[in-house]
Amino acid sequence: MEPMERLDKQMRFVSGIGELKGVLRQTVLAGIGRPENSAEHSWHLAMMALALAEHAPAGTDISRVVAMVLMHDLVEIDAGDLFLYASEEQQRQQEIAERAAADRIFGLLPSDQAARFRALWDEFNARQSADARFARAIDRLQPMLENLAVGGGTWQRHGITADQVLAKVALIEDGSATLGQMARRLVLDAVAAGILAPAPDPAPADSDPGAAAESAREEQQLDDGDQADRDHDQP
Amino acid sequence: MEPMERLDKQMRFVSGIGELKGVLRQTVLAGIGRPENSAEHSWHLAMMALALAEHAPAGTDISRVVAMVLMHDLVEIDAGDLFLYASEEQQRQQEIAERAAADRIFGLLPSDQAARFRALWDEFNARQSADARFARAIDRLQPMLENLAVGGGTWQRHGITADQVLAKVALIEDGSATLGQMARRLVLDAVAAGILAPAPDPAPADSDPGAAAESAREEQQLDDGDQADRDHDQP
Repeated sequence: MEPMERLDKQMRFVSGIGELKGVLRQTVLAGIGRPENSAEHSWHLAMMALALAEHAPAGTDISRVVAMVLMHDLVEIDAGDLFLYASEEQQRQQEIAERAAADRIFGLLPSDQAARFRALWDEFNARQSADARFARAIDRLQPMLENLAVGGGTWQRHGITADQVLAKVALIEDGSATLGQMARRLVLDAVAAGILAPAPDPAPADSDPGAAAESAREEQQLDDGDQADRDHDQP
Repeated sequence: MEPMERLDKQMRFVSGIGELKGVLRQTVLAGIGRPENSAEHSWHLAMMALALAEHAPAGTDISRVVAMVLMHDLVEIDAGDLFLYASEEQQRQQEIAERAAADRIFGLLPSDQAARFRALWDEFNARQSADARFARAIDRLQPMLENLAVGGGTWQRHGITADQVLAKVALIEDGSATLGQMARRLVLDAVAAGILAPAPDPAPADSDPGAAAESAREEQQLDDGDQADRDHDQP
């Protein structure tokens, strides 16, 4: 491919991805009072990766983590945001839509570069490598900080309780022991401050096991900020 | 310093820099119809650095370029945006305000990390290294693309002419020959398309040399997007 043809493709990608500035998240920004968009969210994650780098496991490549978080939400340009309490069927459809979006958006680039960027996005979603686990931990932590900054945020808006947030902290612990420990402390502090509801009383022993399974399934789908918090164990 | 004390400082930095999402630029975003903020602008530059990496001079460290563009505008949280036609005195005051902002904002971090981040910001402003020159080229190119996308943008709003834009392309050429060549072509295309006014007729030979000097000084201070386009030859 001619150099100018490569550049033309890259410039179409550069122009196209600007649309991410128009994709809105659930988070309302403290002190600004409008929903966060996915481009500025991605910037914040990249700065967090740089500032918190020393809390990643030894051997983590922070420049790869930064690249992952910068591009992890690009698919939302086409696939949009998944509703917080989406059904399993909606979630399945969303994953199909995201893969089609990744094909189109990364496909704007020259093929060798498209393959490299797509591989990073797949790695982020698969959450198998240390780099991806640290990237996912940061992506999970940031909406918690935003909720704390506004005194409740999506936790209060969607009636989320501490046990549900703590279940999500596991993914932070998986990426960074130190950040996981801090996140656990933040949850307890939020309960103590009255901005996060404590866990409800446990269901009685004779409760309907079907209802309990349903509750567990919903908890799995709860989300602190957007669909990027879901686990894609298969990219 | 205890690990938890380091983490506390880093978390204050992480929370504090979120304010960059509320700093607005001159650019109005195509298809979204609101001013761009400096956080999403910084995200876009970082993605451009990744996508256009092969057009940087050999030896450029793209991960350092990405880090520079991610943090280059943080000082705007305190120092704000400089008016497009600011006087030399205002410009001098702005540089003082930006250095005080850098002291405060990077100073939120543990001192070793504050020094490293501050050095990167100084390097970006000094524009002496290949990494900084490529970072500055991208920062200069992006507002041009936004102006093209909206059919004129700040060029039309502030009566900028092609000669003034071409004078700014020199900084792009300085960071990347290929991107400079493309930017020059984009300016000519914009004139041909009627969205950028051609250079005005040259002043007659007997014109006031004082006025010409004034005009040259103003051109130097023209800005495609925000004060980050100014050259800080001394950090």
